[in-house]
Amino acid sequence: MATVAMVLGLSLFLGWASLGAEAEPRPPNIVLLLMDDMGWGDLGVFGEPSKETPHLDQMAAEGMLFPNFYTANPLCSPSRAALLTGRLPIRNGFYTTNAHARNAYTPQEIVGGIPDSEFLLPELLKKAGYVNKIVGKWHLGHRPQFHPLKHGFDEWFGAPNCHFGPYDNKARPNIPVYRNWEMVGRFFEDFPINLKTGEANLTQIYLQEAVDFIKQQAHQQPFFLYWAVDATHAPVYASKSFLGTSQRGRYGDAVREIDDCVGKILKLLQDLGIQENTFVFFTSDNGAALISAPIQGGSNGPFLCGKQTTFEGGMREPAIAWWPGHIPAGRVSHQLGNVMDLFTTSLSLAGLKPPSDREIDGIDLLPAIVRGELIDRPIFYYRGNEMMAVRVGQYKAHYWTWSNSWEQFSQGIDFCPGQNISGVTTHSQEEHTKLPLLFHLGRDPGEKYPISFSSLEYQNVLLKIFPIVEEHKKTMIPAEPQLNVCNLAVMNWAPPGCEKLGRCLASPESKPEKCFWPH
Amino acid sequence: MATVAMVLGLSLFLGWASLGAEAEPRPPNIVLLLMDDMGWGDLGVFGEPSKETPHLDQMAAEGMLFPNFYTANPLCSPSRAALLTGRLPIRNGFYTTNAHARNAYTPQEIVGGIPDSEFLLPELLKKAGYVNKIVGKWHLGHRPQFHPLKHGFDEWFGAPNCHFGPYDNKARPNIPVYRNWEMVGRFFEDFPINLKTGEANLTQIYLQEAVDFIKQQAHQQPFFLYWAVDATHAPVYASKSFLGTSQRGRYGDAVREIDDCVGKILKLLQDLGIQENTFVFFTSDNGAALISAPIQGGSNGPFLCGKQTTFEGGMREPAIAWWPGHIPAGRVSHQLGNVMDLFTTSLSLAGLKPPSDREIDGIDLLPAIVRGELIDRPIFYYRGNEMMAVRVGQYKAHYWTWSNSWEQFSQGIDFCPGQNISGVTTHSQEEHTKLPLLFHLGRDPGEKYPISFSSLEYQNVLLKIFPIVEEHKKTMIPAEPQLNVCNLAVMNWAPPGCEKLGRCLASPESKPEKCFWPH
Repeated sequence: MATVAMVLGLSLFLGWASLGAEAEPRPPNIVLLLMDDMGWGDLGVFGEPSKETPHLDQMAAEGMLFPNFYTANPLCSPSRAALLTGRLPIRNGFYTTNAHARNAYTPQEIVGGIPDSEFLLPELLKKAGYVNKIVGKWHLGHRPQFHPLKHGFDEWFGAPNCHFGPYDNKARPNIPVYRNWEMVGRFFEDFPINLKTGEANLTQIYLQEAVDFIKQQAHQQPFFLYWAVDATHAPVYASKSFLGTSQRGRYGDAVREIDDCVGKILKLLQDLGIQENTFVFFTSDNGAALISAPIQGGSNGPFLCGKQTTFEGGMREPAIAWWPGHIPAGRVSHQLGNVMDLFTTSLSLAGLKPPSDREIDGIDLLPAIVRGELIDRPIFYYRGNEMMAVRVGQYKAHYWTWSNSWEQFSQGIDFCPGQNISGVTTHSQEEHTKLPLLFHLGRDPGEKYPISFSSLEYQNVLLKIFPIVEEHKKTMIPAEPQLNVCNLAVMNWAPPGCEKLGRCLASPESKPEKCFWPH
Repeated sequence: MATVAMVLGLSLFLGWASLGAEAEPRPPNIVLLLMDDMGWGDLGVFGEPSKETPHLDQMAAEGMLFPNFYTANPLCSPSRAALLTGRLPIRNGFYTTNAHARNAYTPQEIVGGIPDSEFLLPELLKKAGYVNKIVGKWHLGHRPQFHPLKHGFDEWFGAPNCHFGPYDNKARPNIPVYRNWEMVGRFFEDFPINLKTGEANLTQIYLQEAVDFIKQQAHQQPFFLYWAVDATHAPVYASKSFLGTSQRGRYGDAVREIDDCVGKILKLLQDLGIQENTFVFFTSDNGAALISAPIQGGSNGPFLCGKQTTFEGGMREPAIAWWPGHIPAGRVSHQLGNVMDLFTTSLSLAGLKPPSDREIDGIDLLPAIVRGELIDRPIFYYRGNEMMAVRVGQYKAHYWTWSNSWEQFSQGIDFCPGQNISGVTTHSQEEHTKLPLLFHLGRDPGEKYPISFSSLEYQNVLLKIFPIVEEHKKTMIPAEPQLNVCNLAVMNWAPPGCEKLGRCLASPESKPEKCFWPH
């Protein structure tokens, strides 16, 4: 945990006041609603045919929709690390160099986590007086030094890893659920998830945690709520009253429950009369996991492939900003956005400047959100240690392509089910750095029609893109990779608090090894 | 042209009055806005990422959206014949038996057209006092006996065939444009379409025709306006002021112009104060022509394949009903609908019953539209003379599959670009009548995951579907096919009125032959 004020001399400059917000005595509250593996195409307002997200659609009708919003990585952990640091995973260490262009994350055998040297959004917000809570999935490392309360959060209810399981607590322990510093139980034991029926009441618990926190803070200090629910990540789950209610099956049940919760959270803000002083942003950590579809995976709408890939389906995210009185209702912004922008934008809302001693990839979206401006900026699509693609305006250039290996594909692991674009959805890592594959995403959102190398359009666009990539690569200093080493001994055998519950488990002998990242 | 009242003894029963409409002295006007090759995914409200259809989205916000609306055939002519007769093409003759399961339409060498024995919607509406106008593409046969004014329309401005060309007027004549009984010029000559730039002002002319007719009829007899524009059919076009305005390229320019026109038409109805007495329905004739994408083709959103196929992308259509004061604003109906329902629904609005001497496939949607009811009915997916698939509830069973032949496919004709579902998007005609391929369209709108033959779900669903199909086949009496014979001599050499313009062309010798329908 860096001592921010000492290092940076952060000052309140209340930039938000000049952006249409009234000069209020305190900066606005910030609520980030971060979904897990929810796809762009899962919302009615983004064209899901069953149209089962009335509250999110209403949120869009009252707020601003971002159809061109991206994650920084097509996998959970790096995406979340990027969101909370405003930096690409290759800068904040949330990547691997064990092999080329591999997605890595934080299973419970991971040794690494978010480095102390990184400034996390809640750490910085504290300097502006914010009280910060994370509800749900952390995923930035589960060992003690990575605990969210050591990185700026004041409260936590949730789990450090994915809710996979059930494990036998011998070969692998079940994932612990924490309240603040200590575990209060484990998934599949104290917090049941019925893998057969899909029933779990976790989303309702996460809702209650959000409600309690908002009520507690409503008329106190400004607050930052990071609501990172995970019902749409396989194994998907829903409460009893939502199970079987969707036309889309179990995945849809999970979406419906979350949609209902979002409606309740927004209504609570209105009932408390703090809606005009609370900035709410809804998005997801990566594209829908088509590998789990159709029962346990969502939809990326018209976009190519899904989670794990740097095609649009892997990284284009549903996104809605809501801030009554500040955002004109029902607007659509074609601003190219990124989860990393939520870092910089949140700081801006708090009247803070981002750290100046390091590269920050996120930009302040407030001019786009409040004044409808369009800010020219590229989007970089990374997979592990490789910049796979870049988007500049409507054009996307692929410097590297692959979906997954022939070996994995032949085992039935398919990130692009039913989709095959010759030379694009390749099963070997194909380098195109000299002659990138170019698509116009306006005409061709599905990345189906590469623009001819010999066309004038290709040549003109590449002349514009090349220097942007060159500049990006020149200033890129990769951090030490944090996701290289795994060790069964570091799993959640004995989380803090286990001794009070008599639930500590014996860990095996420490045996660090290189993590295997097949994708 | 059948003499309807004589044959049927049609009586006004004013069924609409009992369905929430006030008992007004005259039935409501009817405006059908029928698009050409526009896809489900081309509207912002259905998830088109560029969100460039503000007026259609507003129409949905003020009306009712139908995400489960279908055409009766994945090709223009049979779809339009079905809409205007309320009957499947196999019943009204708009199909071919030259080969199995082939799409046929009305190019200018077609000998056939809409049979006199068919009752068309405008013919029937006349009996309730309606004045009927068609603006745009007719496509039910271009020879004199098939003229729209011989089938119930009172006015026509538009063309009998697609705006292909330009032809040389020697091997093939350019397509004539008619005002009422006579041609007033030809495409590419008097009505220019610039194939290089995409510029044509036809949509503006079609708008003006609609505006003039609505103004003329607003306070006269009830009217039926069939606005069948074709700017989104290749070669796509837009007026100068819309060219280059879309993020989606030329196809998007065409959509933007049409969207703007729809906004103007709805506003005109409001300005005239007749919006509560005018039922407006927007839909399209078949799925987006992916063969023409991305420059000249649209989007079918998350659905499989496109025009010409009986996959969802070929037959699921964008659909919006608008009738202020009668339809509650912003509703979504999951009613399974079909363009053929517009026939029966329009009759119901006019207080008429459909003909009772023949099978009518269209149902009256007013209970769904006005009262929000859900009517249980199957959807049959035909290609030529074959029932390829059926939808019952959320389930779709494919009895036959094919996209197009290997021969055509190897020539680069691809109705499913970038998509390949093993055993589904086949390039040979595959029969599955004994063991249909089954999909759940709620969980799997993209038809990517066939339900296991051995599952209980499969068995239960097929037990329900089989008798529905059996009943359908039992009552199916195919009409004499009208789209079997072609003859270069019947092309638009000398349309009525050509002599006044000095524009008659000499026709070649009559040589009837079997039309070749490769798809």
